[in-house]
Amino acid sequence: MRVAIYFFICVDLSLALFEEPALFPLPFLATSIAEVICLTAFCGRLVHFASITSRVVFWKDTKNICIMVTIVLTLIDLIIYGSLEAVHIHGVRWSRALRPVFLISCPESRQIRRAFRSIRNTLPDILYVFLLFLFSVLVFSLMALKLFGDRGLRTAEGAPYFTNILEIAFELYVLVTTANSPDVMMPAYNVNWWYSLYFITYIIINTYIFMSVFLAVVYNNYRKHLKNEIRKLAYLKRHKMIEAFNLLKVQVGTEFVVKEATWRQLAKVVAPDISSSHLELLLRISDEGQKGHVDKMNFLRLADLLNIQVVTVNIKRHPLESWVPWIYQSSASLLVQRMVRHRIFVWIYDIIILINAIFIALDEKNPFISCAEWLFLSLYVMEILLKLYTYEPTAYFGRRQFWNWFDTLIIIAALVATVTNTSIQSGQYHYQQILDIVLILRILRLLRVIVSVQRFRVIVTTLMNIGPTMLTFGGLVFVVYYAFAVIGMEMFHSKVHFFDPNFTTPDALVCGNPALKGSAFARDRYCKNNFNDLASSFIVLTELTVFLNFPLLAGGFALVTHQAAKLYFILFHAVVVILVVNIFIAFILEAFFVAYSLEKSDIETAIEKKIQELGVGVQEEDVQDRKLTENMDTKDGSFSREDGDRRRTALKGLYCRIASKKYRTVDALLQRMFESEIAPEDEGPSLDEILNLSPSDIYPKSPNFENSA
Amino acid sequence: MRVAIYFFICVDLSLALFEEPALFPLPFLATSIAEVICLTAFCGRLVHFASITSRVVFWKDTKNICIMVTIVLTLIDLIIYGSLEAVHIHGVRWSRALRPVFLISCPESRQIRRAFRSIRNTLPDILYVFLLFLFSVLVFSLMALKLFGDRGLRTAEGAPYFTNILEIAFELYVLVTTANSPDVMMPAYNVNWWYSLYFITYIIINTYIFMSVFLAVVYNNYRKHLKNEIRKLAYLKRHKMIEAFNLLKVQVGTEFVVKEATWRQLAKVVAPDISSSHLELLLRISDEGQKGHVDKMNFLRLADLLNIQVVTVNIKRHPLESWVPWIYQSSASLLVQRMVRHRIFVWIYDIIILINAIFIALDEKNPFISCAEWLFLSLYVMEILLKLYTYEPTAYFGRRQFWNWFDTLIIIAALVATVTNTSIQSGQYHYQQILDIVLILRILRLLRVIVSVQRFRVIVTTLMNIGPTMLTFGGLVFVVYYAFAVIGMEMFHSKVHFFDPNFTTPDALVCGNPALKGSAFARDRYCKNNFNDLASSFIVLTELTVFLNFPLLAGGFALVTHQAAKLYFILFHAVVVILVVNIFIAFILEAFFVAYSLEKSDIETAIEKKIQELGVGVQEEDVQDRKLTENMDTKDGSFSREDGDRRRTALKGLYCRIASKKYRTVDALLQRMFESEIAPEDEGPSLDEILNLSPSDIYPKSPNFENSA
Repeated sequence: MRVAIYFFICVDLSLALFEEPALFPLPFLATSIAEVICLTAFCGRLVHFASITSRVVFWKDTKNICIMVTIVLTLIDLIIYGSLEAVHIHGVRWSRALRPVFLISCPESRQIRRAFRSIRNTLPDILYVFLLFLFSVLVFSLMALKLFGDRGLRTAEGAPYFTNILEIAFELYVLVTTANSPDVMMPAYNVNWWYSLYFITYIIINTYIFMSVFLAVVYNNYRKHLKNEIRKLAYLKRHKMIEAFNLLKVQVGTEFVVKEATWRQLAKVVAPDISSSHLELLLRISDEGQKGHVDKMNFLRLADLLNIQVVTVNIKRHPLESWVPWIYQSSASLLVQRMVRHRIFVWIYDIIILINAIFIALDEKNPFISCAEWLFLSLYVMEILLKLYTYEPTAYFGRRQFWNWFDTLIIIAALVATVTNTSIQSGQYHYQQILDIVLILRILRLLRVIVSVQRFRVIVTTLMNIGPTMLTFGGLVFVVYYAFAVIGMEMFHSKVHFFDPNFTTPDALVCGNPALKGSAFARDRYCKNNFNDLASSFIVLTELTVFLNFPLLAGGFALVTHQAAKLYFILFHAVVVILVVNIFIAFILEAFFVAYSLEKSDIETAIEKKIQELGVGVQEEDVQDRKLTENMDTKDGSFSREDGDRRRTALKGLYCRIASKKYRTVDALLQRMFESEIAPEDEGPSLDEILNLSPSDIYPKSPNFENSA
Repeated sequence: MRVAIYFFICVDLSLALFEEPALFPLPFLATSIAEVICLTAFCGRLVHFASITSRVVFWKDTKNICIMVTIVLTLIDLIIYGSLEAVHIHGVRWSRALRPVFLISCPESRQIRRAFRSIRNTLPDILYVFLLFLFSVLVFSLMALKLFGDRGLRTAEGAPYFTNILEIAFELYVLVTTANSPDVMMPAYNVNWWYSLYFITYIIINTYIFMSVFLAVVYNNYRKHLKNEIRKLAYLKRHKMIEAFNLLKVQVGTEFVVKEATWRQLAKVVAPDISSSHLELLLRISDEGQKGHVDKMNFLRLADLLNIQVVTVNIKRHPLESWVPWIYQSSASLLVQRMVRHRIFVWIYDIIILINAIFIALDEKNPFISCAEWLFLSLYVMEILLKLYTYEPTAYFGRRQFWNWFDTLIIIAALVATVTNTSIQSGQYHYQQILDIVLILRILRLLRVIVSVQRFRVIVTTLMNIGPTMLTFGGLVFVVYYAFAVIGMEMFHSKVHFFDPNFTTPDALVCGNPALKGSAFARDRYCKNNFNDLASSFIVLTELTVFLNFPLLAGGFALVTHQAAKLYFILFHAVVVILVVNIFIAFILEAFFVAYSLEKSDIETAIEKKIQELGVGVQEEDVQDRKLTENMDTKDGSFSREDGDRRRTALKGLYCRIASKKYRTVDALLQRMFESEIAPEDEGPSLDEILNLSPSDIYPKSPNFENSA
């Protein structure tokens, strides 16, 4: 069911690829039938949803109403467009910009909705800064009009300079993005040295100060709302746990507790996959006095305990050791193993990788160099084989050994691709795609060097942690881009055409539009930056996000109604750069501040203490993955020696450690951080109150520094 | 003495204006004599300084050693250059880049030194991120070389595309600044749609993620070091106060205290300007039980108490009321006063200002409109006169009434300039400068509208608070710019020449350098962007800070040795944009976070409580300046009515209030915030320890979240 809905959403969104202006054109009838099918599916899901939830809940849910409104609007639009098409009038398919609503409203896009909610909450604050910013731009425009308007100055293209207040305001808005930086200043600067002060003042105030203020406002709100959402979750969890406790409690002495058996049963129900040794560990932490029952305080921690990933490492012997112990334990074999485990082994391979990089940069036509490539490849294969010989294979390919997987996959892929490429080349064929893949794989290998430097690893780890949440931003950006791309296609399609770069016909030089003659757009060969299909539109919008390129705007889209195009670009810039990009930056800032303050929470420390107490701990020095397996081996020796302890025997063969910090997400860290602010005794407000919490409830007065920073 | 040193520093720095390449050329002999005089002055100051401080302190001070080394190097350089000049060989005056050292080392530039120290402390962290960033750029360059190098692609200018790894690395570095955004991608994109993914990946990783990481690292370190510095100051203060207490204390009963008379004497010595009523207020706060002595806890607060600006407002009658009471108190006069005080009066003038803005935007040639300008001017003058009639003039022009001063000065200046302009115009003359000033003044008036909107006021107030500290950044930027400008002038001067824009000789079209023929530099008329004198260099560097414009780099300075020029620009970008601009943004972010969390400190609240208790308070509703005087008037009435209280009589005629929060600087706020973290009993470490505090001492382990965020 869920898969079907996702499928229909994908179909609905990808329709834009087939509709006019299309990447792969299909007749209107085909796309409209597909769209109606999708709409029916969404409708069906809504009806199903309505049947299983109460009427009040259903109608209170904004996303259901959004879906319904969008379906109705889309149908109306389809009918109007279809009937206009029947009498050969070309209409505007405006409802296509609404399609992302289905993506946002599907129950699995909770993260995207949260991001949108965060944006909505930030809007009022942003709006005031934006108004002030616009006011400042207008005041400067007025000044520019008065200072430069009457001089009869001309731009480098020969157009009149700063004569119309709206033109000036637009140019100055673009100057904020620094895109037309010296160009817009040059005519005035050429007249008088002093006029540059006007532009420098403008840039300091509007580019540097206002853009920073936008970031400050977005960041401040982002953190406030994030904290609010997470606090809400924490209260909800606490609430549920107390409810559960009240259901299960029995009275022992003066206090209410949960019996060990009940606790075990519950844990098994909640986390069916948990290993019995892991459960044992948790029980020992929860029931510290081993009294046979768990008190309220410890019971409430159950969810947190289950959330902490304890990696249970089963120390296995190397398979070769069991099969051919006389060879594996021979002195030559031991020497090899010692060599591979040595730090110098890593360094040697780092040097090899760097030499490889130099060879890659050199010319490939040289037969000696292409031979060297085979040499490097075999060296890498040898490295992996040696490591597999030394370390236990299942440990080497553990779930969390990202870099081992990375290494092996890259090398195997490179091996396959190189062999394929060589065999094809010998047959006088030359597949560019395969060659490209080989090259990229070859270069990706270089990334391994980073992992050898401790300081780099911290940064890379943080960036990798951000990865999953980055997908939320991907979704957010996709939704915004899709809407703008559809509008852009309606406004600008077929204004310019792309010709093969080798064409030099006059038509190709002006991108198929004579109005572009002599413009920077045609001169810089921007013809492929157009809104003629969805893919191109997305790329143009990406370019504009990165940099509001002036020739792109002024030259290319000045073809349609000037003011409408400008409005479109300013709106796009304001939404994407001021809101979305700033949220992205705020998010990365937050992630790094959290990473700089990595601390273990209380509960985690308790677990770790217990693990150490039970003597089954593996030290947290596994940051360098290669060392983990090594570590376990050394531990193995000491383990056998102190084998007497009863507890250890009970858990024998099991090594636990808390999953490395580097795999924690920022969200989880934040959640733990905020949770620790709630006192353990605090039972939180009632359920209704929790659900209706708004930031202002949590901060009745303006938040103090510790909250807001 | 201090003035003399500043004078010599100015002379020394401004020598760059007169030396080759010069704005105002002077012979080498003249500038070198001036330089030697300056050096002698610095030397003299150093000798003087050495004579009054102990040898150990003198030699431990890095800035003295810096000055000495710089003087010696400058002399060596002067001699070498002079002797080379004598035999007509043109040397390089490299020591000129060192001149800002004198500015940094002068004792009054403590703030700039602090900023430099902060940068130095941030460097190691930044360096690792920068290396990782460079590694990423290199890996991408290698990929680009392999993917696009062999295709024989050409850029829009016809140059070979992506064939040399160093060229690629430079282009990709510039892409990080987004300056050559679509251009660098277009040739590959024109070949195949998919290659745009390479560039988009590059931009996401290097532009968005790495630049945010830079900001995160800089911000994190900035805050850490700021906190450290301020904590050091707080501990020092505490230390000194305890020393003072130990000197002055006498034993009363079981505890040591300071007698009221001693306390008074001390306060008078420390703050000679303090009014006796203010002192009385402080004493009442310090000696709460009115026991005639101050205990240790309260004594330690003395410095903080003195730091809080208590505005003592002496309620005066309007001079007109004393002179001509029968007129001033007449019903017509009272009606006028009530009108002026009414909110609608402010609104009416806001509307007038907006109408004025529209008139300014309209064509000025129209005689009706230039008449209207006179009307507006007289309306503004009338507003000021009416306000002066209603409010007490000395209160209206109070020290803190920024906007009143702003209004009046703008109007008077506009009046003078308009009259001057009109009289000159009637004599058939036309002074552009005066007209420009009139126009700017006229438009600046519009700013007053902002103050009427509460939400805008918060932002504007925060920005105005940042003002003073912004000057520190100004100094920092000046020092960096100066050094780079001097180097730039040595490298690039006289490569291009500026001709009047109306010249169309072939020479003028290529900026006097045939090598620029057909380049974007010449086409976009960038000739004035050159390093031919200090002023131009500063402007070019500003342009490059804002935006690493590609035609500017690629076209203009590719004339000199390519690699050296690239290195210069990359170095400049790395220093200014990655370090200085990020510190600037961090600073603004911090200021806004602090502004969002404006809270009164304990001490301030205590003072305010006392003020209220004594019944001499003026409410803190003075945010809108116009209301302050109003408020006092209303209070006046209630005051006379409840005149019975002994204390009130004692302080009669005096109104106190804590100076509005809006005039507090961020530094002061931070200081108070961090100080509140030190427990009142904590006497801090010993003096030596304090002076040697480094961030790592204060944060023995990695700082936890509350510290770092």
